[in-house]
Amino acid sequence: MANITKKVSWSGRGEESTPLLNGSEEVKYNRQMSGGGVFHIGRLSTVDLDEDITPEEDPVRSKPKEIPHNEKLLSLKYESLDYDNSENQLFLEEERRMGHMSFRCLEISRWVICGLIGFLTGLIACFIDIAVEKLAGVKYHVVKDNIEKFTEVGGLSVSLILWAVLNSAFVMIGAVIVAFFEPVAAGSGIPQIKCYLNGVKVPRVVRLKTLVVKVGGVICSVAGGLAVGKEGPMIHSGAVVAAGVSQGRSTSLKRDFKIFEYFRRDTEKRDFVSAGAAAGVSAAFGAPVGGVLFSLEEGASFWNQMLTWRIFFASMISTFTLNFFLSIYHNKTGELSNPGLINFGRFDMDSVQYSLYEIPLFIIMGAIGGVLGALFNVFNYWLTIFRIRYVHRPCLQVMEAMLVAAVTATVSFAMIYFSNDCQPLETVTSEDYPLQLFCADGEYNAMATAFFNTPERSVRSLFHNPPGTYNPVTLGLFTLTYFFLACWTYGLTVSAGVFIPSLLIGAAWGRLFGILLPFMTTKKLGWADPGKYALMGAAAQLGGIVRMTLSLTVILVEATGNVTYGLPIMLVLLTAKIVGDYFIEGLYDVHIKLQSVPFLHWEAPATSHWLTAREVMSSPVTCFNRMEKVGTIVDVLSNTSTNHNGFPVIIQVAASEEPGKLCGLILRSQLIVLLKHKVFVERARSRLSQRKLQLKDFRDAYPRFPPIQSIHVSQDERECMMDLTEFMNPTPYTVPQETSLPRVFKLFRALGLRHLVVVDDENRVVGLVTRKDLARYHLGKHGLEELHLAHT
Amino acid sequence: MANITKKVSWSGRGEESTPLLNGSEEVKYNRQMSGGGVFHIGRLSTVDLDEDITPEEDPVRSKPKEIPHNEKLLSLKYESLDYDNSENQLFLEEERRMGHMSFRCLEISRWVICGLIGFLTGLIACFIDIAVEKLAGVKYHVVKDNIEKFTEVGGLSVSLILWAVLNSAFVMIGAVIVAFFEPVAAGSGIPQIKCYLNGVKVPRVVRLKTLVVKVGGVICSVAGGLAVGKEGPMIHSGAVVAAGVSQGRSTSLKRDFKIFEYFRRDTEKRDFVSAGAAAGVSAAFGAPVGGVLFSLEEGASFWNQMLTWRIFFASMISTFTLNFFLSIYHNKTGELSNPGLINFGRFDMDSVQYSLYEIPLFIIMGAIGGVLGALFNVFNYWLTIFRIRYVHRPCLQVMEAMLVAAVTATVSFAMIYFSNDCQPLETVTSEDYPLQLFCADGEYNAMATAFFNTPERSVRSLFHNPPGTYNPVTLGLFTLTYFFLACWTYGLTVSAGVFIPSLLIGAAWGRLFGILLPFMTTKKLGWADPGKYALMGAAAQLGGIVRMTLSLTVILVEATGNVTYGLPIMLVLLTAKIVGDYFIEGLYDVHIKLQSVPFLHWEAPATSHWLTAREVMSSPVTCFNRMEKVGTIVDVLSNTSTNHNGFPVIIQVAASEEPGKLCGLILRSQLIVLLKHKVFVERARSRLSQRKLQLKDFRDAYPRFPPIQSIHVSQDERECMMDLTEFMNPTPYTVPQETSLPRVFKLFRALGLRHLVVVDDENRVVGLVTRKDLARYHLGKHGLEELHLAHT
Repeated sequence: MANITKKVSWSGRGEESTPLLNGSEEVKYNRQMSGGGVFHIGRLSTVDLDEDITPEEDPVRSKPKEIPHNEKLLSLKYESLDYDNSENQLFLEEERRMGHMSFRCLEISRWVICGLIGFLTGLIACFIDIAVEKLAGVKYHVVKDNIEKFTEVGGLSVSLILWAVLNSAFVMIGAVIVAFFEPVAAGSGIPQIKCYLNGVKVPRVVRLKTLVVKVGGVICSVAGGLAVGKEGPMIHSGAVVAAGVSQGRSTSLKRDFKIFEYFRRDTEKRDFVSAGAAAGVSAAFGAPVGGVLFSLEEGASFWNQMLTWRIFFASMISTFTLNFFLSIYHNKTGELSNPGLINFGRFDMDSVQYSLYEIPLFIIMGAIGGVLGALFNVFNYWLTIFRIRYVHRPCLQVMEAMLVAAVTATVSFAMIYFSNDCQPLETVTSEDYPLQLFCADGEYNAMATAFFNTPERSVRSLFHNPPGTYNPVTLGLFTLTYFFLACWTYGLTVSAGVFIPSLLIGAAWGRLFGILLPFMTTKKLGWADPGKYALMGAAAQLGGIVRMTLSLTVILVEATGNVTYGLPIMLVLLTAKIVGDYFIEGLYDVHIKLQSVPFLHWEAPATSHWLTAREVMSSPVTCFNRMEKVGTIVDVLSNTSTNHNGFPVIIQVAASEEPGKLCGLILRSQLIVLLKHKVFVERARSRLSQRKLQLKDFRDAYPRFPPIQSIHVSQDERECMMDLTEFMNPTPYTVPQETSLPRVFKLFRALGLRHLVVVDDENRVVGLVTRKDLARYHLGKHGLEELHLAHT
Repeated sequence: MANITKKVSWSGRGEESTPLLNGSEEVKYNRQMSGGGVFHIGRLSTVDLDEDITPEEDPVRSKPKEIPHNEKLLSLKYESLDYDNSENQLFLEEERRMGHMSFRCLEISRWVICGLIGFLTGLIACFIDIAVEKLAGVKYHVVKDNIEKFTEVGGLSVSLILWAVLNSAFVMIGAVIVAFFEPVAAGSGIPQIKCYLNGVKVPRVVRLKTLVVKVGGVICSVAGGLAVGKEGPMIHSGAVVAAGVSQGRSTSLKRDFKIFEYFRRDTEKRDFVSAGAAAGVSAAFGAPVGGVLFSLEEGASFWNQMLTWRIFFASMISTFTLNFFLSIYHNKTGELSNPGLINFGRFDMDSVQYSLYEIPLFIIMGAIGGVLGALFNVFNYWLTIFRIRYVHRPCLQVMEAMLVAAVTATVSFAMIYFSNDCQPLETVTSEDYPLQLFCADGEYNAMATAFFNTPERSVRSLFHNPPGTYNPVTLGLFTLTYFFLACWTYGLTVSAGVFIPSLLIGAAWGRLFGILLPFMTTKKLGWADPGKYALMGAAAQLGGIVRMTLSLTVILVEATGNVTYGLPIMLVLLTAKIVGDYFIEGLYDVHIKLQSVPFLHWEAPATSHWLTAREVMSSPVTCFNRMEKVGTIVDVLSNTSTNHNGFPVIIQVAASEEPGKLCGLILRSQLIVLLKHKVFVERARSRLSQRKLQLKDFRDAYPRFPPIQSIHVSQDERECMMDLTEFMNPTPYTVPQETSLPRVFKLFRALGLRHLVVVDDENRVVGLVTRKDLARYHLGKHGLEELHLAHT
């Protein structure tokens, strides 16, 4: 199956030959193929360079017999998105026909779409919030009544079973729809959106069906009492809304509204998806600026001011919509004080102050958060590997989710049952379901505020309940159990986010830290409210797990509603990031790596100047002539072993043996449309009235181009010719062979390319650089490492 | 001097000939030149295409005899910066020698430098703040004592003269140092920093001398009572600090610390300057996140996560340093409650609430702000044109500044004198210099709170003084006079910012709006504190003048210290921007345009798909051979009429007439260094021991490369050859001739290029695209317009 090929570097000038990283035994699927009339340009050599390679430079080879870990592979199943417009003649003609006013109208429709995205995202957030509140309310009331009934007469095990069964039932529904109907809706969806914005096509990620399953799933899993939040999935939901609205049609519903057709291409769609993700963050946390920053930090590479404003607008509308409808729901129409799904509550001005001597404490908390976050990620990493290997059947996945739900209920119950931390009832105002259990009358069980509650409410209690509400043992036990529960939960086949559990863990140990501080110091300093430390702990834990810094700072500040904490939150997040990065990557990156996604980071690895385009490119390249035989094209497209998506178009110099010169680049999708409409030269001659193919035909087919197998080409037609001139991109970006990897990477990443043609000094095609060729190199412990490509 | 040449478009394929914009009579300096051995590649035609051009397409020609306005010109005096690394052999060899650890060390030094930048910027802000406070305090006390002395005995004209003279004296000092020592230190410096980050080399803008003059100037102008703020100049100061620290030397002080040599190139320096600008914003407004956003919104095009974090770090350190030292100065060590130079004060939680019905009001305020801002910009635009034409001698400039200072004092005095708005003294707590004047005992003059005060304090009084403190007439008069004073003041030859005056104007009319609201409505709604409307008015006015949206929102929110106002501030700013943009650009862009700077916006004009690289490029191009005669190089470099800065290097095909193939790109600065070190082939042969030129030699010469005139080349040496292979960039980016302007623009802008080589399909050089060629096209009222190039 896998031909072992060795690529070899050579140099035009003798003195600058570079040692090679990928001269080693590289298990790589040979892209070579044969087809009449197709040119293979480039050279392939099997000279063995092994003796040049020292062990240090060849980490792959030093453990050759080991089964490669998942994270050492790069999957070939992911396609790329085209964030570089194909400026072919059709496109340019359309652009040139458009006047100044048409561009104005386009700009206005972009704003309208962004407004719509924000509005719908806000509505969805509102729906999720109300549904969760209703369902969880019913559940907690039933369980509470049951517990109260059995507390005195004995037989609390009935209550436990009731609780566990209710939880499992909710979670089962959530897990079933995800596992059986739309597995891509699992988790928070943030890694998937990150990949999408990065330029990786994750199948089915922005479909309407995914949205429906996601919304249903998240309601069930939160109502089911899992250690999850509903905030992460909002980001995914916003992105799906954006992808749907901006295209003016839904393939799932088979409706085409014939509007916004101009936006039916990857570039425009990506811009709207950024706006949708931002609107999601904005709705989740009431953080419009944080949303914009999230989109930019995680997604965009090229900062465009107009785009940023539109994203910002979508965010604003989103938080405003949520706010408005929630105010109606709460019968306080017009009072816009519920900006997001999670509300950190109001921090008092007096407790808000912090002093200089607290700064080192915050930094220590940041470090703790970094370590705990790294621990969380490591556990979750092992768990995910286990799941990939053994828990891949949907039934098993549903059963695991139900098991987690039951265990969560049991553990919570046990913790509440064995806790003897009773607090007087009057001090608590934020408590909705106070459990008395074995406490005296007028008191309630403090452990229950943390466990017998939706996570959002628990976070708020930890931030705001007055000093003395929790005793240290309660907090310590809670942190420990919730840490492992949350870690086990993330990665289940349910729709759920990790933000709120992280905040909750952090708030618990942060509050503990705040309570224990006075005991550790001899001087009686006026230690402020432990709520402040709970907030810092929450920030540290969240930062340690997800490692976003700038956007997270703004999100937390906006959610807190108080700028005073800006500086300490930043310090905490930065420390957590630096400490955490020392051990392992952020949780989202871990999962992206485990999926073997060809994700492009911000820059090429620092030590990759050794490599040039010549070494990283794929070669030989399948090229087409400007005037190509239909049969050849069909054969190349049908070849499943290669599955190329972009083909350089060349002009053959008449009666010459040497390879032709590059004159354009054509995509598989474009060829498919051409074949479908049978745009063949001979046909055009015979039937003069044949309709000229328009850009609209390509847009109608976008984004689900039919597979080549579905297109029937007769034997006669195979002999026809196709003229690609009008449809190819006549000005693809090119680089010479000597270009260093960082330079290639920069061009590729900054412009969001999918194919980059490598040419020699006569403008002849020698290779093609795609995403996989660049994502393959990463900085490991032993220097530059190369990932294996695999069809996993 | 100016040969009139006409460039003509032609097309490889007959059917796609495009009408031309620049086929008209274009007064352009011909770049053609003659020199032995230099190749002119490209074609020049004088075919007259006039008959093809309809009047609509040729706006320039329709008014041919008029003296061109300043804004229709593009100055050729500005050089570009090189934000694309020249990856020549020397550079690659160095990078390849560096191990993983060296890159780590570099990364750590980047963080250290950013920390230093933040620290020093904070210190400077602290120094300015204390100096202004001291000087203004002395001034106001002297004047107040004098007024009090003369109020009863009569003869207040003496006080007026005293006040005017004191103001003029301060302003004179400030104007003299700016006008005579460093004119580039005038104004806020934000347009200059915008240009620098955009890639335009503004001479002397990041020098130590500029910093010293700027700091001195801003202290004098604020203490001199002008309608200016000290916040804008902080951004410039931060940028200068960054440029200095990151280079590890100061040319002004002639000290080279031999550190950070790796960072001595444009790319790295720009990154640090971004950090410096962010640190400046952060110190000015106590807005670290706002600072980062400002840097990104105004400067960066390619968003890099690591860079963003460093910028963020610099911002944090800056605000922290300022905070810390100010807390020491105020004898409250450790209380970190003074995050920025301007402090909007604390908004009470109760007055902070806003309701739904207020949203339309805020939008109306935004629109008012947009209109008033546009008016401000239009007036300032006319004034600036007047100044450019008539007030260009330093003496005149100083006199104008003094005149403005005296008028400001007189107007303020008159306003206070004729005002009969007396307020009881006990309601005011924020008042430092209450003037009794003709008020009864225990009362003070309300107009004096606005005029007899530093602008920062006045803003705060407008935000926070309780309802009823100002009467509407006072506010209306104040708005009117201050509007014109501020408008006259901006653009004077003093260092001063426009942020605070804008806020002040806006706060005044905003408060007026808030006071008048209850009169306009019939229903007695419980109108909240007018301070809220003052804040919105301030945001609207500032947004209407400078038109930054995202960063300004965050800056204002951070300065307010309260997130609740986030949404209304955003709405107001967005409305102000949209309304204002309808009339005229933002103030900074107006000034950039008036300076005829070749500034590249975010995207090419929408309707520019008509144009291709062939039409926009400069042609013919002066090229060098890989092995070139020294005499030729010296002649080309000495040719003052062209003054090219980048030269494609070509390989001539032996004994062939056709132009050579592109093999690299070399810069003037590199050639200068080569000539200075006499890296000639013959010399190398004769003296074998000659030291090989290293990257260090280039870095030592950076950024002030000597002019070619200072390098003596003997007649013998002129006959030597130079081998450019090692020094040229072997992989310059290229585009084919058919590439559309938006595509060329995107590549150029996203990668921060300085030269982009246009090649034909044989990889032969046909033209060169530089910044001027792209900045020339802009969207005017009649569609795409082209600016004239001029040596102004």
